[in-house]
Amino acid sequence: MKSFFHVQDIGDLGAALKEALEVKANPFGWKHLGANRTIVLVFFNNSLRTRLSSQKAALNLGMNPIVLNVNGDSWKLETGMGVVMDSDKSEHLREAIPVIGSYCDIIGVRSFAGLKDMEFDYNETILKQFIEYSGKPVISLESATVHPCQAFADLITIEEHRTNKRPKVVLSWAPHPKCLPQAVPNSFAEWMNAADVDLVITHPEGYELDPRFAGNANIEYDQMKALEGADFVYAKNWSSTKPYGRNICRDSSWTIDKAHMDVTDNAFFMHCLPVRRNVIVTDEVIDSPRSLVIPEAANRVVSAQVVMKHMLEDMQ
Amino acid sequence: MKSFFHVQDIGDLGAALKEALEVKANPFGWKHLGANRTIVLVFFNNSLRTRLSSQKAALNLGMNPIVLNVNGDSWKLETGMGVVMDSDKSEHLREAIPVIGSYCDIIGVRSFAGLKDMEFDYNETILKQFIEYSGKPVISLESATVHPCQAFADLITIEEHRTNKRPKVVLSWAPHPKCLPQAVPNSFAEWMNAADVDLVITHPEGYELDPRFAGNANIEYDQMKALEGADFVYAKNWSSTKPYGRNICRDSSWTIDKAHMDVTDNAFFMHCLPVRRNVIVTDEVIDSPRSLVIPEAANRVVSAQVVMKHMLEDMQ
Amino acid sequence: MKSFFHVQDIGDLGAALKEALEVKANPFGWKHLGANRTIVLVFFNNSLRTRLSSQKAALNLGMNPIVLNVNGDSWKLETGMGVVMDSDKSEHLREAIPVIGSYCDIIGVRSFAGLKDMEFDYNETILKQFIEYSGKPVISLESATVHPCQAFADLITIEEHRTNKRPKVVLSWAPHPKCLPQAVPNSFAEWMNAADVDLVITHPEGYELDPRFAGNANIEYDQMKALEGADFVYAKNWSSTKPYGRNICRDSSWTIDKAHMDVTDNAFFMHCLPVRRNVIVTDEVIDSPRSLVIPEAANRVVSAQVVMKHMLEDMQ
Repeated sequence: MKSFFHVQDIGDLGAALKEALEVKANPFGWKHLGANRTIVLVFFNNSLRTRLSSQKAALNLGMNPIVLNVNGDSWKLETGMGVVMDSDKSEHLREAIPVIGSYCDIIGVRSFAGLKDMEFDYNETILKQFIEYSGKPVISLESATVHPCQAFADLITIEEHRTNKRPKVVLSWAPHPKCLPQAVPNSFAEWMNAADVDLVITHPEGYELDPRFAGNANIEYDQMKALEGADFVYAKNWSSTKPYGRNICRDSSWTIDKAHMDVTDNAFFMHCLPVRRNVIVTDEVIDSPRSLVIPEAANRVVSAQVVMKHMLEDMQ
Repeated sequence: MKSFFHVQDIGDLGAALKEALEVKANPFGWKHLGANRTIVLVFFNNSLRTRLSSQKAALNLGMNPIVLNVNGDSWKLETGMGVVMDSDKSEHLREAIPVIGSYCDIIGVRSFAGLKDMEFDYNETILKQFIEYSGKPVISLESATVHPCQAFADLITIEEHRTNKRPKVVLSWAPHPKCLPQAVPNSFAEWMNAADVDLVITHPEGYELDPRFAGNANIEYDQMKALEGADFVYAKNWSSTKPYGRNICRDSSWTIDKAHMDVTDNAFFMHCLPVRRNVIVTDEVIDSPRSLVIPEAANRVVSAQVVMKHMLEDMQ
Repeated sequence: MKSFFHVQDIGDLGAALKEALEVKANPFGWKHLGANRTIVLVFFNNSLRTRLSSQKAALNLGMNPIVLNVNGDSWKLETGMGVVMDSDKSEHLREAIPVIGSYCDIIGVRSFAGLKDMEFDYNETILKQFIEYSGKPVISLESATVHPCQAFADLITIEEHRTNKRPKVVLSWAPHPKCLPQAVPNSFAEWMNAADVDLVITHPEGYELDPRFAGNANIEYDQMKALEGADFVYAKNWSSTKPYGRNICRDSSWTIDKAHMDVTDNAFFMHCLPVRRNVIVTDEVIDSPRSLVIPEAANRVVSAQVVMKHMLEDMQ
């Protein structure tokens, strides 16, 4: 595997899901693969689950993880080409990336969308520079437009809990006080479209996901209608796409509460975390026995481990 | 061992002391116990000794330590129940704790007292949430009211240096420019009361320790009188308890200097560090051959390792 | 090896270069040396290459690296002797250093020059305290006046690329918006003087390096004349020495561009990184096939590994 970015990078999705369950059942079974291998995890933004689960996945495979917090540990990095670097940025990505690449076997990168320039974000400018200049396989640990480790973990969780062959999965927008990237809903839609599920996406107008990710999913602006008969409700806030990166709807009727869950087919509740309680979802729903938020987070080790395992196998 | 919080959690104290000396003499002798085991060390507050000694103890046991600085690495965590999370806190402890627990075998938590709400602090609200929601054994790496790894290391140090069967140990308050928690004196008193020593506590009025920790120790408001004939002088600042969390005494006559040490029985000087030189203790005393501050800090690896060893043995 | 600070600390330089190439060819060949050994890497200042390459070197040798960011992880440390510590510094180096030493086998320290007090800086006050009080071998990871791991890596890179027995190496000052330490040019000059190269140093007036480092190198104030016939151009900014620590020249004619390289003997371009593009060097030069900045950075693992290997061998 060259890099891990889109659903097709994992190869056959059914085989990957089967492999994920094997890895989960036997986490230390491939520990020999990572001997003398190092992964550098580069964080341009904060992280809790990704930071810990990526380290754990690497350790399970016998690798040495090294964490780099770009802003706290090193210095601001310039990303523009041809710039006269006489202000606050001490180093250019053109140097930093191949240097990091020279110290490791795999690179993981977290770099959120700036939400100011849609073209810059949707070109995955930072992540693509890592792929181009590092000389090493790169894992997106949530980049500007995708969060594939999360979406793969979500799919594993659905696979573990579904009771019918083709479950109805509803991705529902929910309110939030801040402007968040679209990476999680983009990847979730992309992976669900590639899997054997019936995907419905519901959100207010102006929040339409890029068609490259939304694909042929059913888009339904009436949230309650969308939720009818759902087997899985996946709540998530994202900022608007028209205009880009804004918080144009704060309508609290979109908060997932018991009334929303009541129209589903006793659906499981999912969220990638971190979640704002009583803004995205009520305490009652997230604390209910149908909430999968913790198993979903636990599966982040599994998805990351399968991805790293593929990369290590390619190095043998 | 479920969690490590109070002196009784270590089991028989005499046996634990004997085990500590064995671990110190043979630090890598139990390295097999930690194979494929991970400890996450969660820091809500800064740390030097605890951070390093806990990692070293885990490594000695063959475990993988992962450090999480909550504020620098992730984001602010909400602790209140039923809160509408629409302000600056991105995640609730109710999610963060079980997620962390799902990535590791043991959790260590540093979370200082807020010193504003005595009931919140003395209920150990944060630490108890970790114990309740993580599903894993939890080690207090100094929480609101206790610092048991420090107290255990102090006791090991006294055991190594005592020359009579029941030494006189004096815990003396000393001045400090800031308001500090009571965790260190609480645990020190608790552990000394459980050990075979003659404990005297001396401090100005208003600094009385909670009776659950002070126990039957002799409380003496006259510092010089308290120090007479002491074998060990343990200096430490803490903030007042009446009223709670204030700096009501700045009397520099409490600073431990040569005149104070002269009334002792050629006592050893101890402090948990970090120490304010010439505020808590004069250079002359801390730099004297009777100062145990460095061996005491070195024993932090030993105490942490015994605690982790117990937890790992329970997992076999 | 007691500590690594000056070129003589590595022993016979020819033998060390030969060993470096062996280590590079077989990075895991000495992994047994570091079993159960720990290195603490103490950062008073930010770092990217040093942070990552030191961890990688330690891991290659089978050691456990522990990173400590003094300012982010712990607290401000007092360095003055006899101070009454009643202000913002919570701990004295006199305690912090031996405590750190008690938790590890080797210490690496990054601590930049303050550039305010030349005597304090040039006495290597901080690093010498680590050497004196830690009881363990200390590696300078760039201290006030030296950066020996960088200079050793530079020499390895020159050794790998030279095509004549005694290459002409030009250390050229270049402009920069900030005031930088003299550690890199000092160590580069010191190591080149000890090696079999023809060293020329060029800089504006007021930037003269300390004679203890410049040695018998040819000092040439005319940059273009200095560059004539060069085999290697090593660009670097440093702040003035007369007066100390200032930015007295911002003359952009010193920026290394194609016209500068054209007078050389098709020289390789070198820089320790991080580099300000189009301030120190133009994009055209740093992006040319003659640029060695990435191989030079990659050799930071090799130089650090040889140094740690010597220290571990002394402990056997």
